[in-house]
Amino acid sequence: MNFCSNCGARVSLRVPAGDTLPRHVCDACNTIHYQNPKMVVGGIAEWEDRILLCRRAIEPRHGLWTVPAGFMENGETTAQGAERETLEEANARVEIGPLFALYNIPHINQVYLLFRARLLDTNFSPGAETLEVRLVGEADVPWSEIAFATVRNTLTHYFNDQKRGEFRFHFGTIERPSRAPAAEPRP
Amino acid sequence: MNFCSNCGARVSLRVPAGDTLPRHVCDACNTIHYQNPKMVVGGIAEWEDRILLCRRAIEPRHGLWTVPAGFMENGETTAQGAERETLEEANARVEIGPLFALYNIPHINQVYLLFRARLLDTNFSPGAETLEVRLVGEADVPWSEIAFATVRNTLTHYFNDQKRGEFRFHFGTIERPSRAPAAEPRP
Repeated sequence: MNFCSNCGARVSLRVPAGDTLPRHVCDACNTIHYQNPKMVVGGIAEWEDRILLCRRAIEPRHGLWTVPAGFMENGETTAQGAERETLEEANARVEIGPLFALYNIPHINQVYLLFRARLLDTNFSPGAETLEVRLVGEADVPWSEIAFATVRNTLTHYFNDQKRGEFRFHFGTIERPSRAPAAEPRP
Repeated sequence: MNFCSNCGARVSLRVPAGDTLPRHVCDACNTIHYQNPKMVVGGIAEWEDRILLCRRAIEPRHGLWTVPAGFMENGETTAQGAERETLEEANARVEIGPLFALYNIPHINQVYLLFRARLLDTNFSPGAETLEVRLVGEADVPWSEIAFATVRNTLTHYFNDQKRGEFRFHFGTIERPSRAPAAEPRP
């Protein structure tokens, strides 16, 4: 951030009076520009004992598999966002169920919120950012080609819970990879 | 948003190619400025059968009661944010426990995430934004002086669960008040 989005003057990075962290502050109009983490919302769309996976048509992780998920938008709830993303990425209609997993990814300022969802029909198809959509059971999951750690962990918990016959809420944190250079990217 | 925070040119509000929603777009440097909901994180700090409430020293809702909570910051987890807010608002040290409640507030683009937390000692005191800190049991809750609907709902569920002897995760949405003009404000 270089310029004030309100008045167009240059901003400086400093700790405002009464605050504890450096912020981008406009010395012309006094606006403080806060930056906060974003939510990524998505769905684990279930059809009998299988779930919907999407193969990514966009970078990062082009060609790898994920569940439908994306940045939550203003004006919607977390569940509405998960429903919208499932429609956009897989042209799939779902009824959103309980929250299944929350993952903090502090090094990229994201929080993932993934819901269980009931797929309403099997007329799904790839959206603009998707190469391929598939219903998979545990034996068919392409584990070595999953796009993100959040999704890998979520699917592991999901199929464990499915075997146990009881789904519970999972909460965790994805740490920065210690050797890989690339951070968890835009979903 | 009037100006591009990257290059300082004027922005226009339009739907970018391949997108579905209007965004602030810079026609000079092509930056798309997304705006997304924010998370408010906080703790229900428990000491035996009582919990910590704070009386607000700031607007909005000056003088009304809340649990320690505030905007999540970049670089932290939801739980770390709840711990930090409890320290800032009540000078109280806690060990964060399970997520207790998630509230969507779509009309003000916020999601509340409130955790149960174990108060580590009773050496708490008002922080800069707090007039008074108090440990209260259910009978002592100032129900008519609770600052926000999220907090009122959370406390209701909390004491119901406490009576039942089993705490579970609560998920809900706070709709825009139909008659009151003021929206749920900055926490």
